Amino acid sequence: MLKNISNLQATLNKLVTDQQGINSEGKVADYIPALADVPPNLVGISVATIDGDVTSAGDFQVPFSIQSISKVFGLVMAMNRIGDDLWQRVNMEPSGQPFNSIIQLEWEKGIPRNPFINAGALLVADVLTSHFSTSNLAFLTFMRSLAGDEDIHIDNSVYQSELVHGNRNAAMAYLMKSFKNIQAEVPDVLSHYFTQCSIAMSCQQLATSLLFLANKGIDPNTKNNICTARDAHRVNAILSTSGMYDQSGEFAFSVGLPAKSGVGGGVVAIVPGYGVICAWSPLLNTFGNSIVGTNLVAGLAEELGLSIYH
Amino acid sequence: MLKNISNLQATLNKLVTDQQGINSEGKVADYIPALADVPPNLVGISVATIDGDVTSAGDFQVPFSIQSISKVFGLVMAMNRIGDDLWQRVNMEPSGQPFNSIIQLEWEKGIPRNPFINAGALLVADVLTSHFSTSNLAFLTFMRSLAGDEDIHIDNSVYQSELVHGNRNAAMAYLMKSFKNIQAEVPDVLSHYFTQCSIAMSCQQLATSLLFLANKGIDPNTKNNICTARDAHRVNAILSTSGMYDQSGEFAFSVGLPAKSGVGGGVVAIVPGYGVICAWSPLLNTFGNSIVGTNLVAGLAEELGLSIYH
Amino acid sequence: MLKNISNLQATLNKLVTDQQGINSEGKVADYIPALADVPPNLVGISVATIDGDVTSAGDFQVPFSIQSISKVFGLVMAMNRIGDDLWQRVNMEPSGQPFNSIIQLEWEKGIPRNPFINAGALLVADVLTSHFSTSNLAFLTFMRSLAGDEDIHIDNSVYQSELVHGNRNAAMAYLMKSFKNIQAEVPDVLSHYFTQCSIAMSCQQLATSLLFLANKGIDPNTKNNICTARDAHRVNAILSTSGMYDQSGEFAFSVGLPAKSGVGGGVVAIVPGYGVICAWSPLLNTFGNSIVGTNLVAGLAEELGLSIYH
Amino acid sequence: MLKNISNLQATLNKLVTDQQGINSEGKVADYIPALADVPPNLVGISVATIDGDVTSAGDFQVPFSIQSISKVFGLVMAMNRIGDDLWQRVNMEPSGQPFNSIIQLEWEKGIPRNPFINAGALLVADVLTSHFSTSNLAFLTFMRSLAGDEDIHIDNSVYQSELVHGNRNAAMAYLMKSFKNIQAEVPDVLSHYFTQCSIAMSCQQLATSLLFLANKGIDPNTKNNICTARDAHRVNAILSTSGMYDQSGEFAFSVGLPAKSGVGGGVVAIVPGYGVICAWSPLLNTFGNSIVGTNLVAGLAEELGLSIYH
Repeated sequence: MLKNISNLQATLNKLVTDQQGINSEGKVADYIPALADVPPNLVGISVATIDGDVTSAGDFQVPFSIQSISKVFGLVMAMNRIGDDLWQRVNMEPSGQPFNSIIQLEWEKGIPRNPFINAGALLVADVLTSHFSTSNLAFLTFMRSLAGDEDIHIDNSVYQSELVHGNRNAAMAYLMKSFKNIQAEVPDVLSHYFTQCSIAMSCQQLATSLLFLANKGIDPNTKNNICTARDAHRVNAILSTSGMYDQSGEFAFSVGLPAKSGVGGGVVAIVPGYGVICAWSPLLNTFGNSIVGTNLVAGLAEELGLSIYH
Repeated sequence: MLKNISNLQATLNKLVTDQQGINSEGKVADYIPALADVPPNLVGISVATIDGDVTSAGDFQVPFSIQSISKVFGLVMAMNRIGDDLWQRVNMEPSGQPFNSIIQLEWEKGIPRNPFINAGALLVADVLTSHFSTSNLAFLTFMRSLAGDEDIHIDNSVYQSELVHGNRNAAMAYLMKSFKNIQAEVPDVLSHYFTQCSIAMSCQQLATSLLFLANKGIDPNTKNNICTARDAHRVNAILSTSGMYDQSGEFAFSVGLPAKSGVGGGVVAIVPGYGVICAWSPLLNTFGNSIVGTNLVAGLAEELGLSIYH
Repeated sequence: MLKNISNLQATLNKLVTDQQGINSEGKVADYIPALADVPPNLVGISVATIDGDVTSAGDFQVPFSIQSISKVFGLVMAMNRIGDDLWQRVNMEPSGQPFNSIIQLEWEKGIPRNPFINAGALLVADVLTSHFSTSNLAFLTFMRSLAGDEDIHIDNSVYQSELVHGNRNAAMAYLMKSFKNIQAEVPDVLSHYFTQCSIAMSCQQLATSLLFLANKGIDPNTKNNICTARDAHRVNAILSTSGMYDQSGEFAFSVGLPAKSGVGGGVVAIVPGYGVICAWSPLLNTFGNSIVGTNLVAGLAEELGLSIYH
Repeated sequence: MLKNISNLQATLNKLVTDQQGINSEGKVADYIPALADVPPNLVGISVATIDGDVTSAGDFQVPFSIQSISKVFGLVMAMNRIGDDLWQRVNMEPSGQPFNSIIQLEWEKGIPRNPFINAGALLVADVLTSHFSTSNLAFLTFMRSLAGDEDIHIDNSVYQSELVHGNRNAAMAYLMKSFKNIQAEVPDVLSHYFTQCSIAMSCQQLATSLLFLANKGIDPNTKNNICTARDAHRVNAILSTSGMYDQSGEFAFSVGLPAKSGVGGGVVAIVPGYGVICAWSPLLNTFGNSIVGTNLVAGLAEELGLSIYH
């Protein structure tokens, strides 16, 4: 599958340089000031392999708000905690709707279509809130452990902003609660959710943290069993059909990797059996995906022949 | 990826025997008499590899109505004929709706979500009807050529039944025409569509016919270029997100292969770089997918470690 | 209720003159050439009372395409023909959707919300097509009889245009047929429906023809029993909640009369116990209602204190 | 219009007696215990006329939870307070959806279809919360003044139950807030809304309180101007198209009066120029309307010829 990775560093350098030169028509997430103020021209990429290599270029060490990328980690924690009971409360089908649609949630009686739309991530947040005494701390501990970095922290200005602008997420959580599919108190669920969204990490940290999904659930560096091989498979499957908002189909069509994006501008892509790519740049397209971040992942997948669809 | 295929024949035999023994709660497609009359306990499977092997078990030589599996071939023909213009008229996103939903078609102004829901397949049928002088003959010729069998034919009793029960497809086609996204006359489009759905083929024929999708567009037996490598990738990508009706996410989650089902009871699954599986058994679940057919593909994928998500 | 009708002629003259002077931002129905070519500045009004008076102003004798106003007459014919069986196949609730929405039809399993949205009118057309040997002739005969004018005719150029641009109506009819709520052949239903829409009548003729709805079902001029008092009540009720497309609520709110509009620019309003107003002017607002026609009815209702909500 | 009211008392007695004898298949509102515990066989009716008469039968003096009937009074208060600005934030069209649908609210960008669906009533509650220092007290004072009874009070057990079961209303309020169409804090809006729903009043009190809507805005007993004649007209119009949940069209069709129901079992109907009917009985049909209450209003309207559609 992999064509040539003899000079990955040069390839990444060229990709970053090319993308730094483009005039993007996108815009930074502006629903909260803390995200709107990020310099829009930053560009970074890291590639971590299950053999232990990490190759990076650009602003790969700058922490950014991981936002919806946190949904991947939350899902793994919830799967580990309550097992298949989770799938009674959230589905695993693509949504075919913009990522925060409340319409589908009503149609389907409070059962979110999948864990990567906002409603599904709130459901997962409810599981964590209900099953950990201090779920936000547990989440942060999980992230620090995966990245091997105790300095990873929550960006409090992002968190405070999210709380103030969280009315739509509150609406979805209360709607699910009206269907009895949220168990904790809604303000607690929102607080957990916004906490995990507000964690700041770099490309390098994210790429390394997700290696277990490319390696049947085992962190190749620590040999820790992060989740079962079956659950790693499942997460990759849902990422493939639903990880890139309402552009998931197009991303599969043109790139062909399980991936997740966040409105902070990050994009992570899993290459099963090989490693993880994390690219970052703040300007977003209309779907909420990083324009340059998507371009970088697409370019590298093409260059190296990484697609799972061949 | 592949664990062990040394005794594929024995594996298939066991899978078929096991499935023949289950009491299925499913039901045969009964919207038309010609499908309702198929003996429900037939079970067949064929595995064709890009190396030229074909291994089969059960009723693998019995022709069945390919129904929606024809959408894969129609899509390839349309991509070959009009290139990327096709993607102006049909999207490539999963639908998140039951397979024949007309609601989404109205929301999205007559642009179907993808070529594998009925609306999208009708759009593809319109492309073929408009760009071939006798599109149904062209389609049949394409199928015969891929299968290497001039005896493949249209089941006329199925075709006549489909015409009589085609009101919902007519509704979708007229709705798309009202949005100016259907160019030919609707009765002609429907006639083409029902023709391609009414073709009868066996597991062995279907598995062989689709090998080009597992082999970057090239038929490994004839070395014919059936489509570009890029288009083979694209078809596999859309199959992965949208090939199994509203169970596509679950199929990815538990099996992990690009696949397409039809209400005739057939299921085809592409294993990029390896080959094609075709399983068949008439009883359907509530999503319209063959219960035993899905079980067979799932069992074989598990046994051989075929999933693209690892 | 009625404040002062001593000088109705002068009131109508003033209303028409005032409205002729306004610069309307509306536009003529342009989906078919035959409607787009009507001179946009024509303005007419007629008031027929159950006492036998008809007072008119402006272009009240110019025939125009009655379009959806025909739905009122079709409903009365169908109620007379099949009685309460009709209400098993069409509901009497307001739709809360734009007038030709196909979404609601799918939600509600092929049962239209009411007889005045297009789907409901097609259902009524199916009843007429199924229960009269030549329903279009029966319809025309009914109209001529009510208006007392054998010269009323079908505008063939409108009819032909409607047929060519009727794809959306065809979609709705086939969708209802897929739910088994259309009994005749869809092309026959469409043909009937477009025939009744294509009838040309003047303000004077329409106002006179509908007097039975203001008079408990009895034509005050001929003393003919056109429908039961109960059915006249029912038609007025549905007109009040659903007669003015998605502006029905606003029309009730600001005018307060059972009314029906058509994209030909006509507006009829029933004043129970008093008479009927018909106003006409071709320019339409975004809801498909005549701007000047609505203004004229509103002005007269205000002037004379006609509202049923006081 | 009115056929015969010489023996209204006898008519009411007979209607109540007849309805007490029916075996109703309905059920008491059971989403909160405080409503579920009301004796289901109570039946009352009062008719107040603008001439000052009040005629009653059955349990007409038993206070019940007015629930959604409070929406009528809230609307009048909000119209008085902010005038036509209100109609920028809530529409006056029938909804065509079950009364608490959140789907339509999303489609229409946080603008409720009308003030009588829950979303619209929450919007009105926001207006009151934002424009009165203690809106719940202001509301109670308004009710006491209209009924001329200082003993009218809030049923605290109902209020507490509503708060606990208010997740769906919370979802709608947060959704509107996400569209910036709610100005106060959501918990404050909900608190006001549940307060007004929890007021307990009798048939006699409600019938008397609403006389101003039958009398062009003037309370006939006190001669107080409660609202403008125009606003009384408007409220009656919206009641006619939207007052009886998703049965509004059927109620117009078969009864023909502006009316509002509540899940406490009350039904009020306005007879412009004549008076107000209030009927009550706790068992509800599937639309949330009192079965016997609706029967009583329908029977009386038929008996006296009260319909506004004649």
